[in-house]
Amino acid sequence: MKLLEERILKDGKVIGGDVLKVDSFINHQMDPALFREMALEWKRIFEGCGINKILTIEASGIGIAAVAGLEFGCPVVFAKKSKSSNTPEHSYSATVKSFTRGTVNDIYVSTKYLNPGDKILIIDDFMATGEAARGLTQLVKEAGAELIGIGIAVEKAFQPGGEELRSMGIRVESLARIKEMSEENGIVFVD
Amino acid sequence: MKLLEERILKDGKVIGGDVLKVDSFINHQMDPALFREMALEWKRIFEGCGINKILTIEASGIGIAAVAGLEFGCPVVFAKKSKSSNTPEHSYSATVKSFTRGTVNDIYVSTKYLNPGDKILIIDDFMATGEAARGLTQLVKEAGAELIGIGIAVEKAFQPGGEELRSMGIRVESLARIKEMSEENGIVFVD
Repeated sequence: MKLLEERILKDGKVIGGDVLKVDSFINHQMDPALFREMALEWKRIFEGCGINKILTIEASGIGIAAVAGLEFGCPVVFAKKSKSSNTPEHSYSATVKSFTRGTVNDIYVSTKYLNPGDKILIIDDFMATGEAARGLTQLVKEAGAELIGIGIAVEKAFQPGGEELRSMGIRVESLARIKEMSEENGIVFVD
Repeated sequence: MKLLEERILKDGKVIGGDVLKVDSFINHQMDPALFREMALEWKRIFEGCGINKILTIEASGIGIAAVAGLEFGCPVVFAKKSKSSNTPEHSYSATVKSFTRGTVNDIYVSTKYLNPGDKILIIDDFMATGEAARGLTQLVKEAGAELIGIGIAVEKAFQPGGEELRSMGIRVESLARIKEMSEENGIVFVD
């Protein structure tokens, strides 16, 4: 998505070879007008797929997903994080490792809000190793719901998450896919 | 706001005398169409106040605030939580006690995203003791920005937070104000 790529080039900041800071418009300060354009793009991409619910994970996925829910006209569920083995009763849960932070969290969703027959679009701001998306996918499966696809704002395509999920037959639609990046040479997107 | 009050009566659940669960439409599963109506109501209330930025706190404030940002046409900043005395450099921070959870967190916002001259609307889903709102107010003050007001979805008006903030001269606009509630007698709103 040209608009998002241009914004990343303008306002994103590469730190070392691995960290892309987009906290001026995505995950600390948010640009809701940009989120709407992203939502419209996913709506176009997943047209006719019958999506009736969006699933995301706290915290930085919530803003994008809420605006997407507005455009899709459907409810948005956000998975909550808890210290491992401390998830509430009557919930679907999965374990998610964060490589960036070196932490392990359980994520969970109340069994009330994911149901067989639901057609789910997972939305998140970033994909790198794909741990969060895999965890969310597991919740959808546990609930007996149908996963239509995964919408990601920024995919670090030089990390394995996206390709691993695609090779499992899951449709992953990332609006900006970074092929390589460095402080010296900047950001190159996948064509 | 009639629409929100009716929704609380229909889908909210009182547990004991103190807990109101609204997780089917506000803070676990979210109803973005309702959030838009709430946003339009705040827009009407704060018309002409020159609000140029919305401030909220992770996690459950983010969805409401993002949709509000869309209607106000302004960026939305969410304060992040960290273990106390572990906030990053170049940030404004405050300490927030959660009475419900018995935890103490530092909240922080990068100094880049709150500036002198900003006219801030704070938005959050709930107000009870007002700790989170007071913490956010402190961040606004530290940054030398101007606090225009606080927009709350559900205020437990039988707890002191809202009145304390109002007595400090802060404009608090809650869309549903609960006067009393119990499992036996249900919910009564402030007129």
